Amino acid sequence: MLKIGIYGASGYTGQELLKILVRHPEADVVVLTSRKFKGLPVSDIYPAFKDLTDQKYIDASPEDVASLCDVIFLAVPHGEAMEVAPYFLEKGKKIIDLSADYRLRDVKVYEKWYKKHTSSNLIQRAVYGLPELYRNDITEANLIANPGCYPTGVILALAPVLKEKYIDISSVIVDSKSGVSGAGRELSIGSLFCEANEGFKAYKICTHRHTPEIEQELSLLAGCNVTVSFVPHLIPVSRGILSTIYATLQRDISVSDLVGLYKKFYRNDIFVRIYDEGTYPNISCVRGSNYCDIGFALDDKTGRVIIIAAIDNLMKGAAGQAVQNMNLMSGFPEDMGLNLVSLFP
Amino acid sequence: MLKIGIYGASGYTGQELLKILVRHPEADVVVLTSRKFKGLPVSDIYPAFKDLTDQKYIDASPEDVASLCDVIFLAVPHGEAMEVAPYFLEKGKKIIDLSADYRLRDVKVYEKWYKKHTSSNLIQRAVYGLPELYRNDITEANLIANPGCYPTGVILALAPVLKEKYIDISSVIVDSKSGVSGAGRELSIGSLFCEANEGFKAYKICTHRHTPEIEQELSLLAGCNVTVSFVPHLIPVSRGILSTIYATLQRDISVSDLVGLYKKFYRNDIFVRIYDEGTYPNISCVRGSNYCDIGFALDDKTGRVIIIAAIDNLMKGAAGQAVQNMNLMSGFPEDMGLNLVSLFP
Amino acid sequence: MLKIGIYGASGYTGQELLKILVRHPEADVVVLTSRKFKGLPVSDIYPAFKDLTDQKYIDASPEDVASLCDVIFLAVPHGEAMEVAPYFLEKGKKIIDLSADYRLRDVKVYEKWYKKHTSSNLIQRAVYGLPELYRNDITEANLIANPGCYPTGVILALAPVLKEKYIDISSVIVDSKSGVSGAGRELSIGSLFCEANEGFKAYKICTHRHTPEIEQELSLLAGCNVTVSFVPHLIPVSRGILSTIYATLQRDISVSDLVGLYKKFYRNDIFVRIYDEGTYPNISCVRGSNYCDIGFALDDKTGRVIIIAAIDNLMKGAAGQAVQNMNLMSGFPEDMGLNLVSLFP
Amino acid sequence: MLKIGIYGASGYTGQELLKILVRHPEADVVVLTSRKFKGLPVSDIYPAFKDLTDQKYIDASPEDVASLCDVIFLAVPHGEAMEVAPYFLEKGKKIIDLSADYRLRDVKVYEKWYKKHTSSNLIQRAVYGLPELYRNDITEANLIANPGCYPTGVILALAPVLKEKYIDISSVIVDSKSGVSGAGRELSIGSLFCEANEGFKAYKICTHRHTPEIEQELSLLAGCNVTVSFVPHLIPVSRGILSTIYATLQRDISVSDLVGLYKKFYRNDIFVRIYDEGTYPNISCVRGSNYCDIGFALDDKTGRVIIIAAIDNLMKGAAGQAVQNMNLMSGFPEDMGLNLVSLFP
Repeated sequence: MLKIGIYGASGYTGQELLKILVRHPEADVVVLTSRKFKGLPVSDIYPAFKDLTDQKYIDASPEDVASLCDVIFLAVPHGEAMEVAPYFLEKGKKIIDLSADYRLRDVKVYEKWYKKHTSSNLIQRAVYGLPELYRNDITEANLIANPGCYPTGVILALAPVLKEKYIDISSVIVDSKSGVSGAGRELSIGSLFCEANEGFKAYKICTHRHTPEIEQELSLLAGCNVTVSFVPHLIPVSRGILSTIYATLQRDISVSDLVGLYKKFYRNDIFVRIYDEGTYPNISCVRGSNYCDIGFALDDKTGRVIIIAAIDNLMKGAAGQAVQNMNLMSGFPEDMGLNLVSLFP
Repeated sequence: MLKIGIYGASGYTGQELLKILVRHPEADVVVLTSRKFKGLPVSDIYPAFKDLTDQKYIDASPEDVASLCDVIFLAVPHGEAMEVAPYFLEKGKKIIDLSADYRLRDVKVYEKWYKKHTSSNLIQRAVYGLPELYRNDITEANLIANPGCYPTGVILALAPVLKEKYIDISSVIVDSKSGVSGAGRELSIGSLFCEANEGFKAYKICTHRHTPEIEQELSLLAGCNVTVSFVPHLIPVSRGILSTIYATLQRDISVSDLVGLYKKFYRNDIFVRIYDEGTYPNISCVRGSNYCDIGFALDDKTGRVIIIAAIDNLMKGAAGQAVQNMNLMSGFPEDMGLNLVSLFP
Repeated sequence: MLKIGIYGASGYTGQELLKILVRHPEADVVVLTSRKFKGLPVSDIYPAFKDLTDQKYIDASPEDVASLCDVIFLAVPHGEAMEVAPYFLEKGKKIIDLSADYRLRDVKVYEKWYKKHTSSNLIQRAVYGLPELYRNDITEANLIANPGCYPTGVILALAPVLKEKYIDISSVIVDSKSGVSGAGRELSIGSLFCEANEGFKAYKICTHRHTPEIEQELSLLAGCNVTVSFVPHLIPVSRGILSTIYATLQRDISVSDLVGLYKKFYRNDIFVRIYDEGTYPNISCVRGSNYCDIGFALDDKTGRVIIIAAIDNLMKGAAGQAVQNMNLMSGFPEDMGLNLVSLFP
Repeated sequence: MLKIGIYGASGYTGQELLKILVRHPEADVVVLTSRKFKGLPVSDIYPAFKDLTDQKYIDASPEDVASLCDVIFLAVPHGEAMEVAPYFLEKGKKIIDLSADYRLRDVKVYEKWYKKHTSSNLIQRAVYGLPELYRNDITEANLIANPGCYPTGVILALAPVLKEKYIDISSVIVDSKSGVSGAGRELSIGSLFCEANEGFKAYKICTHRHTPEIEQELSLLAGCNVTVSFVPHLIPVSRGILSTIYATLQRDISVSDLVGLYKKFYRNDIFVRIYDEGTYPNISCVRGSNYCDIGFALDDKTGRVIIIAAIDNLMKGAAGQAVQNMNLMSGFPEDMGLNLVSLFP
């Protein structure tokens, strides 16, 4: 049994990790840290865990955590992960960092969008934890930079057409819509029920921090510099991200050939589901699951392809993908503990 | 592997059964019937099943179903189950009927609330499928009358205090609130998004068909005739039933003693969770799980006890409980395929 | 034109008052106070007011407010209203207090449920601002204790049967359900979208501060001491309260006679709508309006009457009723500025 | 008092018209037709109208309607309006048609997207009822083609930049999101609460019938043929459309200059609100009102402008705009009966 620590376990991502891991046949969660709720049972904060675990949050030092665990998930805010990751690595632990701290290869880009990096020497050791693109590297890695929620769906949606050079790379527009859990459990006016309910708005238009992460990975796929217009919106649902992506085709392809291209590209990827012509993803079909659903349409009149990707932001967009990475790093079947059917209705 | 048929598989209950059973290690769903969608893949109607099953709905005759299956779930409307159950039983099949057709012991009561019964001779063979009360009978049964969604929570909430005669049986008021999936997937104005969203109302006040079922089981527990005032309401959520139950105490008991009484009563029942003093159930803590959560308060001023029970109406209130019954009838661990953590947020 | 001040204008109740008053033909809102948002335009905090008002929140002293206004709405938390009301009254202003500070006639009861009262001498001058019961007193009053949201619907639902002594006063159970705006705009975990959405729970069971207010008014109606079991719940909607009230009849009456009794009792009350037999209120039919909708059912088997009342908690339960009171105090038509059709869907 | 008929009054648009008109000081609704609900009081179908009107739906012939009314709103499905409009016009009535039957100037385009036109000779007499662009024509018109819900926001969002030739007309992408009431009150699986709730999806990608209507009006504004990629999505809210529009700038302009351009362009249009830099529309700020809110961002990196427009689809997108047109046709103030503050929260 793998001994697991969740560092920063009281947010939505932390509890989602725990939800998966309490049912994972090879995982034993031994430490859950939280400064805010130290000493309290998890089920006091998240009653859904009642009778499933009697664990309490503790305010453990990195030393304590390292002494108890083999694998450590960092579910702390950006900037805090880079403070503790070096120590854990030095102690030989495997780290899956759900923050942005090691996602951007260029420390200058990181520091422009986030803050001063205090362990930038580790960036090159980190592997971007998108198994569909980096599976082999992940199996060897000690430090995983678990992808952001928006980037996960967008990158998977564009990888095949970028690799095969079907689209004009200057034409990419990403119109994304996320459920409210994407903002975490922090107290903010915008996250109040009465503010989000029956509302819909764009936010951080072309200034969201996931933009450089998306552009980095799309550029690696295209083999040249790709920029995108990225506009996130807030949907009044708890979970789910759907991205509608527009690009101009630079060579002809039919929808059925796109379907074929994607099915082939992702033939070994059980968490990517490709939709046949005329059918499209819906966040309600991935809710609670680790799937990324992808569908296509062509706008013949304008020569554009429209690619739609849906994920559960807490699963494939965070905790589910993190456990998928843990499985790969540990030699377990990639879907162990993740064979969840989405909850509908 | 148990060969399973779902007779009437295209409603919400049918798809929920399938969702559980595709992950059940001992079940092999071999027939899904639907007149409406015959010939269509399940994933056309419920895309959440994409890549999980390539089965199609068929319009199989009872003969065909019987020839292929060991266990048959009847997820058809009231009145249709009683038409086919006799044949299946005669063929030696095990039947779990999710309709009301065999729930009421007194055929006159059934016929008053529903319609003429065409196989009333089977009523005495049927076992009321509430494992927490009838576990032993269920293990021996061939015909299970799977409880209604409202009765499940209400009966579990009241069983210990009725058995121990803590409450005045003439004082019971049941104020229940259900999510919209309780109405099924039928087209009706009241089930439209715009009609239910941001709304809340009572319906079928003191005339809901679950009233005689609740009263039958409470009377058996009390050892005398119990009547209740039962008022269901509609909550604008997809899943969940919370019942707030009021009764006058006829002997004193503290909340902590109630907690103790219930924990003891349900000590072997992993799907019943008893809440400690000062904490109360919420439907969001049982969503997608097979739990029934129960909590208590006392109104000292008026001498009343308030008992609150929450379930997921599609799980413990229908498909989850049906699989729990299947497990018991088949000698499997009671929670096989049902160890689902509730989906929150 | 009446010069109006809203003291504590940045909460949901304050903005609802402003929403009504910007369209009121005889009202001129001249001061909006807010410590938190002082200096900011209202439309920065509530963009719905864009182009409707260019007013800013100010942090005005009571002296400044008094010098500018004829009528002052107090939309501050409990305990703050009693600090400023005496000064405003002394300056000859008319006060409509939306807090609980002057609602309870017995200062000991107030101090038990709230805190030490600092201007209890004014309690006897205050009129409980429920126009349907106290219209004449309101027209003469200088200090209105605007009723709580839960009490408004419950009192209107019970007044006729209590006055006419149809019900056993020891049998009253009030099961209420409120939308999330009832908790105001304060930051709390329970008010977050992801916590309330798709959830339903009871809270403050038999310990909610509106209990003594309800009991006070019911006792006055009955002419003797009435106690109730009051259990509030939280519905995942923005607005609306529906109360389901149970009582044992002590003399026979049919539903149609109840309808007749209530229509007669409220014949001069345009904001009370009585539902005919077989039809019941829904919060979606009062959303955004000042109506209180009331319907009835009998449970013949148990001898109970079930009375259901629905209001919009921000309107008839707060700001709408406050403006109704202002109209009465000022000699305007009672529904001036309040002739709003509810927003459905 | 203008005598008004609503032909096809029982859908969401019909009831929204009635909601506005019962409070309109110059309108007297004398006929409400509905085949389905003939003989029933409006308040049986929409209880929100209880005590506000005692009118019943009737199944009146066009002759009867014409004999009673001065102005007739056609709120019937596409294809039915063109059957009755000729008769009403012949009888000298003013017609506001909320269907698509007279929106498309080119009958061939209409017949491609809809069906055979039976009164195409009237198309040239019809005025496209977008007051901000066609106010003068509307005041003279007898037949108004009230715009579609999606086109209303999109056209208003693009008119100034198209007229001033700031954008590359080949670059326009319209990503729109609509609440569920856009689908009307018809029974369909996709409109069920459980299907739409907690979901989000695109539909009719680049094949929605509003595409040619959008392109027609944008082409007229640009003075040359404009094509757009138009992708509508479904948001789980009752009301509201938000469109996020992307276009490549062909000459430089700052956000503050865009704001200035739009404020000038719409300086006489009280129902268009222009957002300052850094603030963006939200459907919750227009709910229940007749506003169209417009905001802007620039993506410097890619040279694109992002324009966001929000309306209430039942108000500015249907009934509100229809009454605005009626006011203009009748010489009433443009906002008579429409001075509604949006309902938030």
